[in-house]
Amino acid sequence: MPDAYSSLILPDVRLMVQEEDRHGLTEFCRVLHPAVIANILEELEPREVWAILDHADLRLRVEIFEYINLRRQTEMVAELDKRRLSELLEEMSPDDRVDLLSRMPHDRVQDLLPLIAQAERNDIRRLLSYEEHSAGSIMTTEYASLPADITVNQALQRLREQAPNSETIYYIYILNSARRLEGLISLRELILARPESVLSDIMQRDVIRMRVDEDREDVVQELARYNFIAMPLVDTEDRLVGIVTHDDALDVVQEEATEDAYRQGAVEPLRDDYEDTPMLTILWKRGIWLLVLSVVALMTAGVADIYAQSTAEGGARASEAPPGLTSALIFLFIPLVMASGGNAGSQSATLFIRMFALQPADAAVPGMEYHVDRDLILREFAIAASMGAVLGAMDFLFVWLWFDKGVDRAAVVGLTVFLIVILGTTAGTMLPILFRRMGMDPAIMSNPLIAAIVDVLGIVIFYEVAMALL
Amino acid sequence: MPDAYSSLILPDVRLMVQEEDRHGLTEFCRVLHPAVIANILEELEPREVWAILDHADLRLRVEIFEYINLRRQTEMVAELDKRRLSELLEEMSPDDRVDLLSRMPHDRVQDLLPLIAQAERNDIRRLLSYEEHSAGSIMTTEYASLPADITVNQALQRLREQAPNSETIYYIYILNSARRLEGLISLRELILARPESVLSDIMQRDVIRMRVDEDREDVVQELARYNFIAMPLVDTEDRLVGIVTHDDALDVVQEEATEDAYRQGAVEPLRDDYEDTPMLTILWKRGIWLLVLSVVALMTAGVADIYAQSTAEGGARASEAPPGLTSALIFLFIPLVMASGGNAGSQSATLFIRMFALQPADAAVPGMEYHVDRDLILREFAIAASMGAVLGAMDFLFVWLWFDKGVDRAAVVGLTVFLIVILGTTAGTMLPILFRRMGMDPAIMSNPLIAAIVDVLGIVIFYEVAMALL
Repeated sequence: MPDAYSSLILPDVRLMVQEEDRHGLTEFCRVLHPAVIANILEELEPREVWAILDHADLRLRVEIFEYINLRRQTEMVAELDKRRLSELLEEMSPDDRVDLLSRMPHDRVQDLLPLIAQAERNDIRRLLSYEEHSAGSIMTTEYASLPADITVNQALQRLREQAPNSETIYYIYILNSARRLEGLISLRELILARPESVLSDIMQRDVIRMRVDEDREDVVQELARYNFIAMPLVDTEDRLVGIVTHDDALDVVQEEATEDAYRQGAVEPLRDDYEDTPMLTILWKRGIWLLVLSVVALMTAGVADIYAQSTAEGGARASEAPPGLTSALIFLFIPLVMASGGNAGSQSATLFIRMFALQPADAAVPGMEYHVDRDLILREFAIAASMGAVLGAMDFLFVWLWFDKGVDRAAVVGLTVFLIVILGTTAGTMLPILFRRMGMDPAIMSNPLIAAIVDVLGIVIFYEVAMALL
Repeated sequence: MPDAYSSLILPDVRLMVQEEDRHGLTEFCRVLHPAVIANILEELEPREVWAILDHADLRLRVEIFEYINLRRQTEMVAELDKRRLSELLEEMSPDDRVDLLSRMPHDRVQDLLPLIAQAERNDIRRLLSYEEHSAGSIMTTEYASLPADITVNQALQRLREQAPNSETIYYIYILNSARRLEGLISLRELILARPESVLSDIMQRDVIRMRVDEDREDVVQELARYNFIAMPLVDTEDRLVGIVTHDDALDVVQEEATEDAYRQGAVEPLRDDYEDTPMLTILWKRGIWLLVLSVVALMTAGVADIYAQSTAEGGARASEAPPGLTSALIFLFIPLVMASGGNAGSQSATLFIRMFALQPADAAVPGMEYHVDRDLILREFAIAASMGAVLGAMDFLFVWLWFDKGVDRAAVVGLTVFLIVILGTTAGTMLPILFRRMGMDPAIMSNPLIAAIVDVLGIVIFYEVAMALL
C-alpha cells in the first residue's frame, strides 16, 4: 500500500521542491503519516530530503526522521552542520538517538556532545555504555512515572503536564523516592478508576521486571509471553532505568530471526538489509564461510585419497572393470564441488528468502507485486563470479601442489568449482523468486533441495569439463 | 525468571490442592500475574489445573487460561462439560476463542455452538471463515469505537461504560453510521486534549488501514513499520471488521521465522513447539523430506554411473593405477551418504537452534541456565535410528535391485547410510547444545559446517564398512 503510494506521489513532491512551493511542502509534511513520508523520501537524495523536512517544525521533522532507516539516517546527518544536528539529536527519542550516534564517526560525536544539553548528554553516555546485545542497548529512557501517594485525578493532571510525545504513556510506573519500582498502573486502569482513588490502592504491586544487563532476546521473549506493551528494566538496586517497548521488541525478533537464518545459511550477519549492503562487504561475509567450508571439503578429499590408495588393489578381485582415472579424480573432489555449489546456492537462497520475508508484496500496484530489482540479480551474479573465481583458484592450487595431481587435472577441478558456484547461485537466486511468483512460499525451496539439484549438476559439469580438458 | 519461580512455588500449590485450601488457592490466583500462573500450571495435570482455576472468578479464570498454550488448552477443555465450556468460550477474547475452536473436534464444536449467545456465535462463525494465513485469522473483533460528533469528555465517559477488559482501548476508531473508518484517536491524545473538544476536530483522518483478506505477514510488516499498537482491518466496503494487535503480531513474526527456518532445514513446519510434538508426527515431517532428497541423491548416483561406465577405458591412458572397485562403489554413492547424513544433521540443528531461540535461558536457577531435557536428546536418537533404518533399507533395495550392484555391496551402502544418519543427527543435536553451554550463539554452528563434518566422517565410515563387509 504505501510503496505504491510513494511512487504515485513522488513526482509531485519533486515538483514542489523544484518550485520551492512552501505551502505545498508544509501540507505534505503535516497531512501524511510520518512513516509514509519517510517511505516516500527514501527515493530522494539527502539534500532534497532536508529541503523538504525544513518545512516541518522540529518535532515533526524528528518524528519523520526517526522512521527513516539507520543507514540512510547516517548518510543524511553527514549533510548537516553541527548546530542543526545537535538540535535534531536533542529532540530525538533516547534509543533512536543512541543508535544513530553509534554509527557516526567517533570524532564527529565528540565534537557534537558539548553542544547537547547536559541531561541529554548524560543519557547518551549511559545508553552508549550498554553492551550490544543487552536489554539496555534497545531500551528507551523515556517513560511515564508517578509517585504512589497521589490520586487518579492528580495523576491525570500530571500526565497532561508531562505530555510525553511518544506512546510510552500507556504504562505508568510507580516509583518511590529512591526511584525503586513499586508498582504499575496502565492508562486504561487510570481512566476506569474513580478519580479520588489513591494510586497505591489501585496499582499492580507484583510488577514483572527484568535486569538491564540481561540478553535482549530474553527480554523480548518475556515481553511476548506477557503480551506487554513495554517491559520495565531495573538496575542491580531495583531502580527503574528504562523500558523496552513493543515496537523495538518486534524489530529485535526480526533481526534475531534474520541473524539465525543467515548463520544457518552460512552467511555472517549483516548490519543493514541485504539490498543496502555494499558488494565488497557481502563478498567478505559470504566468502569467508565458503573458504572455511572448502578447506573442510579439501580435508575430506585428503581422507578419501588415503583410503583410495590403500584399497586400490581391490580392483583385481572383481569381474567388472574398475573405473577410469577421470572417475578417480572426480571421486576425490566431487564432495568439494558439491559443497562449494551447494553452499553458494544456499547463501543466495537464504538471503533472498529473508529479504522477501521482510519486504511485503506490494499488492497495490498491478504487475509489481513480486518485482525483484534487476540490478540485485545482476549483482548476485557478479558476487557468484567473484567467489567462484577465488574458490576455483584456491582449489586449483591445492589440487596441483598439495594433492600433486598434475596441472591439467587441477585445472579441471578449479574450472568445475568456478562453474558450479555460479550454477548454485543461479539456483539459489532464481528458485525463491520463481516460487514467490507462483504464489508459493519462497522458503519451501529449502536449502537441501537446492543442494540436491547442485549435486546432480555437479556430476554432469565435472565429467563434461574433464572430458573436454583431459 | 518465571521458570525458576514456578519450580519454587509448584510444591506449595500442589499441597494447597491436596488440602483443598480454598483461601490459599484464591489468593494464588489473585496475586500473581495471570501469565505467571499459567506458566506454573504447565507442570500440572488438566484435572488439577481446573481444581485450581475454580477458585478464580470467571473473568480471571479466562485470563489465566488464555496464557496457556494452545495444545494444552485443547487437552484441558476435553475435561470440561458443555455448560462450563460454553461459559468459558463466551468470556474468551474473540481471536483466542476461534484458535481454540479450530483445534477441537468438529462435532464437539457443533454441539457447543447452540449453547453460546447469538452475538458470540455469529462472531465465531465469521472469524472461523477467514483463511489460515489471512489477516482475518489473527485479528480480534474487540476494539474501542466511537462516533465523530461527541466531545472528549463524552468520549471518556463512554469508554468507562464500555470498560473493555483488554488493552485494545489505546486506539479508538471513529466510525460513521455505516461503520466506515473515518478517523483514529489514541487514548493518549484523548487525555491530552481539551475536554470540550469535538472528536472530529482532533482525530487523525488519514488512517492507515489494511484489508482483512491480505496476507497476515504483510499486515505484520506494516504494523512494524508504523510502530502501531494495533492495525485496523476493513472489508471491501471500508467498514472496520477487526484489529490486529501488537502481541499477536509478535507471535506471527516468531511463527513465520520458525516456519522459514524449518523449511530451510528441510523440516515440514510443525503446529506446536518441537518438544511438544509427538514422535510419529516428527518422523513424518522430517522423514518425508529425507526420502525426497535421497531419491534425488540416487538420481545423482545414476548420472555418475552412466558417466563412469562411458569413461571407464580412460584408465588405460595414465601411469597411476586406477582405483579399486571399493572406491568405485563409494564414488557412486558417497553423495547419497553425505546428503543423508548432512540433511538429518541439519534437521536436528535447525530444530534445536529454533527451540533455544524461543526459550530464553533460565538465568535465575544456577546450573539450570542451559539445561536440555535428557528425554529430548534420547528421543532425537530414537528418531535418528528410525529414519536411518528406513533410509538405509530403501537405499539397500535401490542399490541391489535398480543399480544391480550385488547384495553385499548394497548392504554396505545401506549400513553406511544408517550409521551416517545417526552420526549426522548426533552432530546436529550436540553441537548447538555445546555452543550454547559455551555462551556462544547456537546458530553459529551453521548447517553447512555440520554437513562438512558429516562429509569427512561419511568417507571414513563408508570405507570402514566396505572393508569390513567386502
